[in-house]
Amino acid sequence: MTMISYLTTIRFGFDESDALSDELKAVGIARPLVVTDRGIIAAGLAERVLAKAGGAHWPVFEGTPSNPTEEAAHQALAIYTAEKCDGLVAIGGGSPIDLAKAVALLATHEGPLEQYAAILGGVPKISASIAPVIAVPTTAGTGSEVGRAALITLRDGRKLGFVSPHLIPVRAICDPLLTLGLPSGLTAATGMDALSHCVETYLSPRVNPPADAIALDGATRIIGNLTRAVAHGDDREARWQMMMGALQGGLCFQKGLGAVHGLSHALGGLTEPSLHHGTLNAVLMPAVMRFNAEAITDKIARLRAALGLSAHADVADFFAGLNVDLKLPRGLRAMGVSAGVIDDMTRKAAQDHSTGTNPRLIDVAGYRQIFEQSWE
Amino acid sequence: MTMISYLTTIRFGFDESDALSDELKAVGIARPLVVTDRGIIAAGLAERVLAKAGGAHWPVFEGTPSNPTEEAAHQALAIYTAEKCDGLVAIGGGSPIDLAKAVALLATHEGPLEQYAAILGGVPKISASIAPVIAVPTTAGTGSEVGRAALITLRDGRKLGFVSPHLIPVRAICDPLLTLGLPSGLTAATGMDALSHCVETYLSPRVNPPADAIALDGATRIIGNLTRAVAHGDDREARWQMMMGALQGGLCFQKGLGAVHGLSHALGGLTEPSLHHGTLNAVLMPAVMRFNAEAITDKIARLRAALGLSAHADVADFFAGLNVDLKLPRGLRAMGVSAGVIDDMTRKAAQDHSTGTNPRLIDVAGYRQIFEQSWE
Repeated sequence: MTMISYLTTIRFGFDESDALSDELKAVGIARPLVVTDRGIIAAGLAERVLAKAGGAHWPVFEGTPSNPTEEAAHQALAIYTAEKCDGLVAIGGGSPIDLAKAVALLATHEGPLEQYAAILGGVPKISASIAPVIAVPTTAGTGSEVGRAALITLRDGRKLGFVSPHLIPVRAICDPLLTLGLPSGLTAATGMDALSHCVETYLSPRVNPPADAIALDGATRIIGNLTRAVAHGDDREARWQMMMGALQGGLCFQKGLGAVHGLSHALGGLTEPSLHHGTLNAVLMPAVMRFNAEAITDKIARLRAALGLSAHADVADFFAGLNVDLKLPRGLRAMGVSAGVIDDMTRKAAQDHSTGTNPRLIDVAGYRQIFEQSWE
Repeated sequence: MTMISYLTTIRFGFDESDALSDELKAVGIARPLVVTDRGIIAAGLAERVLAKAGGAHWPVFEGTPSNPTEEAAHQALAIYTAEKCDGLVAIGGGSPIDLAKAVALLATHEGPLEQYAAILGGVPKISASIAPVIAVPTTAGTGSEVGRAALITLRDGRKLGFVSPHLIPVRAICDPLLTLGLPSGLTAATGMDALSHCVETYLSPRVNPPADAIALDGATRIIGNLTRAVAHGDDREARWQMMMGALQGGLCFQKGLGAVHGLSHALGGLTEPSLHHGTLNAVLMPAVMRFNAEAITDKIARLRAALGLSAHADVADFFAGLNVDLKLPRGLRAMGVSAGVIDDMTRKAAQDHSTGTNPRLIDVAGYRQIFEQSWE
């Protein structure tokens, strides 16, 4: 059993999900609301985790949409309140984990949700009184199990970041065995999400050498294991490494992300089509790397080395090639995005909380460039 | 200003010590006991830090011995209680910081101190009710500002580790400018302490890839800056890098240390002579690296790379050479240790809490070998 203690306590290892009931006791949750989605239920993962914890009778909200919404948070909150819950267990990818964070916030803070958004000055409004959340990721992954943010789409369609150290789940239980059944397409998409976290946080201008070290090591780990995990989903070692790489990306969020996330957050707010966050990140990486090139000359050598590239390799080309190898979409058009959203999306991206830590200053015009270059 | 958030909140940067009063407010300390030593007072560092914080009137305990003792902890506690303090500010090297932790413990937990020692089952007895400590290191360093341990010499001479997540200072303020005046001898000794933390935690068998990444990066950083900081104490950049490397070593303590610390803790309990912890670590490193060689074949390549060595370099020889370059003592005899202490020291070392995470099993016989090989 591996206990890692950065930001919070993380239990990491095969069958660590068996420890859920111990952790509930440790953090003082007697009656959790389980937050998950129908895919997790269908895969039998929720039942597996809950059975071991003796939680077959706990209330469950399984209606988490693929991009969590304010609406769904209120639906879950209604169950939380009616059932007199005192904490939450999130089982699934980033969506249930982020949704659980939103419920934890709404259960302890006055509504509406919007006022707590980071770009609207909400960070200081989020207090320590937040309900405790235990996060059990089933993808590798969003890093949300150790992340201080919840990305929630408000009723008006804006996908906003709610950010606070108090939003970090009190416990993360990272059991790679829960990802053995993750289909290859999702393995690729969530794996690229994790890689984008390691890359964007490393390139952020904030000064945090420990985070940089973790990020580069996470990137190397992911590059070394992603194609194997995609091709051989039953490879336990590859799944372990991918979940660790995803955790590492999450541990670096305090550095801030960049333009990839600025635009993927905006696009993630669309309901038609409903776009996967990790896939968006993968598709946007090449153009953002090109856009950032002049601003990252002091860091590119270490990044190439971490990615296993030669001294003058083109990193943008590398990411484009990786997307092809992983059979990810060619571009935004292939993902079903309509060209008409460019104005709205680039405007929202420029306001996103991740934009401020892109290594090169980026505005609406810059994001137009990225959108167009990522079209197909 | 660099805010790093691993385990606790760390403010890192030139003149960050100016932020002490903000941090006292942030953690809710209204009347701190300042714990420091006469060297810090004489160097004017305490006055400098306290003046900025408006703390000229705060009670000060300046009697911290070079290796903190139970006796000194009780003396400081008496002032803490009489002055109705509600927290502590430690200014100095590892000794005042560890002493402050011991006072924080005694102020909130029933005595005697011994029962809380890690090797005597004390870890679960230390609760969250501990008084808050803000650590302001003036060396680079022990890492104690983010460490969960306090090494205290009990009245009977045993130097024991008191270990708990609750012992981690609530804030670390790392201002490299406070080390500009650190004499070259102490710069070398405390720098080797930091390096030994990075090396020993990396080699520990516990599984914690984020810590490994931080440790190796810290080792590289220290190797790249130590000789410069020793030769040019006024080099601000070198001082910044050394303090970051020392912080990084401290962030990895959760991996556990090894035989270097097992024996240096034991030797640190002697009153005659009173031995510097960092110097002891430096002197013991070569023999411990030789002892561990067969057990670290899976890690040695990354370690050599981090230290900037070629693919087959002898790491033990490297450390021995580094000690010569830094004008550190040749061995234990040169440090004034008497040969007669070997039985007592090796017995204590074998019981030290760091022994369990040495990569190779080590007992009294193993420690005798290390003691003898480190003699001269």
